[in-house]
Amino acid sequence: MNERRIDVGVLGATGMVGQQFVRQLAAHPWFNTAWLGASERSEGKTYAEAASWRLASPMPGDVERMRVDSCTPGRAPQLVFSALDASAAQEIEIAFARAGHTVVSNARSWRMDPLVPLLIPEINADHLSLLTEQRRTHGWRGAIVTNPNCSTVVLSMALAPLRTLGLQSVLVTTMQAVSGAGYPGVPSLDIMGNVIPGIAGEEEKMESETQKILGTATAAHPVVVSAHTNRVAVIDGHTEAVSVRLEQRPPIAAVIDAFRSFRGRPQELELPSAPPAPILYLDAFNRPQPRLDAERDGGMTITIGRARRCPVLDVKFVALGHNTIRGAAGAAVLNAELMLAGGLLQGD
Amino acid sequence: MNERRIDVGVLGATGMVGQQFVRQLAAHPWFNTAWLGASERSEGKTYAEAASWRLASPMPGDVERMRVDSCTPGRAPQLVFSALDASAAQEIEIAFARAGHTVVSNARSWRMDPLVPLLIPEINADHLSLLTEQRRTHGWRGAIVTNPNCSTVVLSMALAPLRTLGLQSVLVTTMQAVSGAGYPGVPSLDIMGNVIPGIAGEEEKMESETQKILGTATAAHPVVVSAHTNRVAVIDGHTEAVSVRLEQRPPIAAVIDAFRSFRGRPQELELPSAPPAPILYLDAFNRPQPRLDAERDGGMTITIGRARRCPVLDVKFVALGHNTIRGAAGAAVLNAELMLAGGLLQGD
Amino acid sequence: MNERRIDVGVLGATGMVGQQFVRQLAAHPWFNTAWLGASERSEGKTYAEAASWRLASPMPGDVERMRVDSCTPGRAPQLVFSALDASAAQEIEIAFARAGHTVVSNARSWRMDPLVPLLIPEINADHLSLLTEQRRTHGWRGAIVTNPNCSTVVLSMALAPLRTLGLQSVLVTTMQAVSGAGYPGVPSLDIMGNVIPGIAGEEEKMESETQKILGTATAAHPVVVSAHTNRVAVIDGHTEAVSVRLEQRPPIAAVIDAFRSFRGRPQELELPSAPPAPILYLDAFNRPQPRLDAERDGGMTITIGRARRCPVLDVKFVALGHNTIRGAAGAAVLNAELMLAGGLLQGD
Amino acid sequence: MNERRIDVGVLGATGMVGQQFVRQLAAHPWFNTAWLGASERSEGKTYAEAASWRLASPMPGDVERMRVDSCTPGRAPQLVFSALDASAAQEIEIAFARAGHTVVSNARSWRMDPLVPLLIPEINADHLSLLTEQRRTHGWRGAIVTNPNCSTVVLSMALAPLRTLGLQSVLVTTMQAVSGAGYPGVPSLDIMGNVIPGIAGEEEKMESETQKILGTATAAHPVVVSAHTNRVAVIDGHTEAVSVRLEQRPPIAAVIDAFRSFRGRPQELELPSAPPAPILYLDAFNRPQPRLDAERDGGMTITIGRARRCPVLDVKFVALGHNTIRGAAGAAVLNAELMLAGGLLQGD
Repeated sequence: MNERRIDVGVLGATGMVGQQFVRQLAAHPWFNTAWLGASERSEGKTYAEAASWRLASPMPGDVERMRVDSCTPGRAPQLVFSALDASAAQEIEIAFARAGHTVVSNARSWRMDPLVPLLIPEINADHLSLLTEQRRTHGWRGAIVTNPNCSTVVLSMALAPLRTLGLQSVLVTTMQAVSGAGYPGVPSLDIMGNVIPGIAGEEEKMESETQKILGTATAAHPVVVSAHTNRVAVIDGHTEAVSVRLEQRPPIAAVIDAFRSFRGRPQELELPSAPPAPILYLDAFNRPQPRLDAERDGGMTITIGRARRCPVLDVKFVALGHNTIRGAAGAAVLNAELMLAGGLLQGD
Repeated sequence: MNERRIDVGVLGATGMVGQQFVRQLAAHPWFNTAWLGASERSEGKTYAEAASWRLASPMPGDVERMRVDSCTPGRAPQLVFSALDASAAQEIEIAFARAGHTVVSNARSWRMDPLVPLLIPEINADHLSLLTEQRRTHGWRGAIVTNPNCSTVVLSMALAPLRTLGLQSVLVTTMQAVSGAGYPGVPSLDIMGNVIPGIAGEEEKMESETQKILGTATAAHPVVVSAHTNRVAVIDGHTEAVSVRLEQRPPIAAVIDAFRSFRGRPQELELPSAPPAPILYLDAFNRPQPRLDAERDGGMTITIGRARRCPVLDVKFVALGHNTIRGAAGAAVLNAELMLAGGLLQGD
Repeated sequence: MNERRIDVGVLGATGMVGQQFVRQLAAHPWFNTAWLGASERSEGKTYAEAASWRLASPMPGDVERMRVDSCTPGRAPQLVFSALDASAAQEIEIAFARAGHTVVSNARSWRMDPLVPLLIPEINADHLSLLTEQRRTHGWRGAIVTNPNCSTVVLSMALAPLRTLGLQSVLVTTMQAVSGAGYPGVPSLDIMGNVIPGIAGEEEKMESETQKILGTATAAHPVVVSAHTNRVAVIDGHTEAVSVRLEQRPPIAAVIDAFRSFRGRPQELELPSAPPAPILYLDAFNRPQPRLDAERDGGMTITIGRARRCPVLDVKFVALGHNTIRGAAGAAVLNAELMLAGGLLQGD
Repeated sequence: MNERRIDVGVLGATGMVGQQFVRQLAAHPWFNTAWLGASERSEGKTYAEAASWRLASPMPGDVERMRVDSCTPGRAPQLVFSALDASAAQEIEIAFARAGHTVVSNARSWRMDPLVPLLIPEINADHLSLLTEQRRTHGWRGAIVTNPNCSTVVLSMALAPLRTLGLQSVLVTTMQAVSGAGYPGVPSLDIMGNVIPGIAGEEEKMESETQKILGTATAAHPVVVSAHTNRVAVIDGHTEAVSVRLEQRPPIAAVIDAFRSFRGRPQELELPSAPPAPILYLDAFNRPQPRLDAERDGGMTITIGRARRCPVLDVKFVALGHNTIRGAAGAAVLNAELMLAGGLLQGD
């Protein structure tokens, strides 16, 4: 599989999430960034001209002089990653799927569609089985696959190992990084030395997406989720304080063991972006912390700590994940790796 | 009562909390700072020499040249505020109470003692009735009165109006300001662009102090509290995301009304430090925020917003309070005002 | 003069600077905010509806229900403050001046016009003599008066007392607060944990405006200024590291004395917004600091510290001022106070 | 040279700078961390027990279980890096040099000693010639070599290419990261949303060390340096606004060319830690910025931008470097690489 890299494209390549895709795909062993699509304003420009690069690592040399195309099917490779805004994604992603492309999307537009997998490969790789029905129903040659909202990824990954312990309900309070709001995103006057309680639409996404992810391909998990979402003065890394009710009332050691022993298809298949273990449980008091722990294993590991009894529900702990990597571009790339390894990208 | 200001002293006057007391008492209509006590290192120095002043407002002119005394009874006025560390407070506060002083303390040492009022005047002014028994049991001419931990004050104030709605259990996640940790306190390398989950001892204090405050003078309230405490990059103001189970399952409007109509003894008595209403409920989405709302009414108002249904418990909302004013020095001054207005400081 | 407050208006009242004017004028002893002008989008709305209030102090009660007018002369009082963007200010301010209004502007459009006073009342109150010629040349019944750019105010105030010591050249490096860039202004992703070297157009403004301010009404001061401007993660308060060459090579004590003894017309006239002394020199090492010193005397005092020898030029020191008060709205209000006290607002 | 890694030790290994050495040496192609020395408190403990690890990257696995020794010669390898505090360094480094060790030190104790090289390998590799005289004078079998203060490294590297253009005088204003002050270092209450003007002793170090570095082994360079040093709310990376007087008054293009074409011995020798070019000049306005540029080439590259005319001196620009890598641990490791490549570590 490693012998020849397959060409891939990026829809919405010039924006903040698009740049993260370009960075995430740089030097990828399986994928070669061969096409970049963006809005009309950027069409025809080189990527260096069109994108106002805002990441700490320099723009990869091989995309600098690549010409940006419009977001219409035709010249793009079979596999395209979508970094489009939800408003643009709704129609463009369908157009690409209809034209035979596999769209691995980070947009929220199709996440809750019953025929679209909302994928976290460690948790619900089997949801890819929806693609057959998706293609048949819509008459598409291509397909759309999505990854969850950045705060949902962290929560779902922490909850997945607890399903076998009788997961019933979850109260989560997030402390989310500003990079999750894109660029220009959160004004500095709003967040420096401050906390913004409430992120529009975020709580609803966490409450519904989590049920879909943890369920089967066709039935949502019955867990009840209640979220308080907050923005804090952090660059990268969403921290989440979680309390859960577990029917089995297991000892804390059993909960920690569930975190530590959790593995999924990406680990079995040794996918290039897969961390050694999806969850790293830290024993130290005061961990995980975004500035110290978000970047572990290339930002693909969820770190958890402080598991202890919750007097109101049953168990409480803190979870952390890198919102623009494990929660966005890295998530989509892992989805594509899973599909390629499973023979689901072999064209039409 | 206003005609003549009574002299007061400050124990531990040179530290961070001591400075906050000195600022809080500057130009107070009832109290005159007449005595400052600190450790041996400071004894005999002027306050300007002894205290490394770290507040944004300048040191009040009338204390600059005041000589700092040792923390031993003798020369101090009848009423002393205690800004001592818990380790020092344990013995020194008893020595002062035994010598006839009323010690209005911010230290945690005696908060959970069954004979010591843990006072928030809007909530449990009647707990001052414990003082008779306290004096009799210990044979003191003076007394010790305490205020809660800064994060507990915010929570208790938000919960007090909900007691009539059948308050059963509470899940709270705090996002606490660095000023709560004193000076030098939290290293900048630890908190800039970061979240520290877990503050030693804080969760236990919130879980137990809240029950004592909300109960009667002799019986704790049965509410079960579970706390996640976190430090964030904020200067002043603790933000708390709260979910509560209320037996009566009231409509949200009834909860908001309970917040807005809440009043206590300080408002009845029009105490100098009392805000017009203890709680200000804000309708705007995204509020309260520490940088915009913590300073309202001199930092003595608790602001609340975002009351809405919690799918797991019953109601959720966000509460905010100024941790070094309503949560420390201002709280103690309000306690002393309540005692003076109630004739409990009329000497020995 | 105090008996009756005169009505004033604010052009561009809904934006960030407009809000600062509204706050600055609240409870002003001489001025009564009676008219608010903004763009068409806001016309007819109440101020509470039209302005997205972003200041920590609440919106003054008396403007909340005031209707916002369009920015056309007619219904506005004789005196209007301009918080317009430079692009809008260019034409609108002329229209108001022509229609007989005195426009006290914070915009940069007319600052360098030879007939427009660029006023700092402590330094060049006599530049108001330009108004006679301004009116005659343009045939205006009204007038335009401006205040400098926020970083220039701090520098000019620090340099004014040094003119008598033979001020020849100045090297200044600024560390400017994000509030100077308005709202939404600087994205948090750009400035959190960061320094942005270079603020478009700022260095040129400091280099030219300073010469005009320090000169006579008709001739610029010959001082040569070189500026490095930088944005730092500070909310309010521009800090400036300054080195100067003084022909007289005075001892440092003489420089400090010049700072401390500096007074101007606002202090003589005891204008309502005038600080007791325009400059406060702090002896402590490590001062001034924006978070501790910017708010002194309502944000109208410039604080200076660390005066010492500069091995390359002659003397070096640090200066600090509140950029949105002394550097913007407060500056304009002081200008208007000076004009009113000098009989220059008595209408036509 | 690459075939076998030579053993090295770290003096003061448990502190903040010591940890940076341990990280910098992890997986080094030439050096193998074989010995760790620290204060008595740590002696006998494993490194994992003794060091409170505070870096974002995890503690290297091979040092976790290594036993910490006392800081006395005997069991240490020939080459030791010193991360000692200045107070401890003074005597301990001499003891090690006397016992035959080559001490590559980051401490300031011996920097200005005329027999001790103050080394930046790209600038003054020839200063190593002092070692012969150093050994003879003191009768040592070993030696002491130092690297400059972190803010001096950035400045000296920017000035070195300008020596051929007639470098005469320099005015520099620094905006320094908090990591330069160690741990716990700068309290968050002091620096969040703030600037601290003045860092004790820093200006003097920049003014004197720079002359020694840019000079010959025995004569200081005559350049006059004047520094304003400031602490800002940045984690890593010192930004410096620099104005210089150049006798030749070269065009800006010649200055930029001098930066870009600058190379030194580390580049010739292709030392493992050497960046491709010591200076990277960025054309973009608003660069370099610490959060985006400090980590380039492993933190070993100095980035410069904004070269333009200075009306007061001659040329001005902005320089940036990673203070704990190029300004501390990485600097020392590069010094050791230079010595090893030059045959100066071949033992006794």
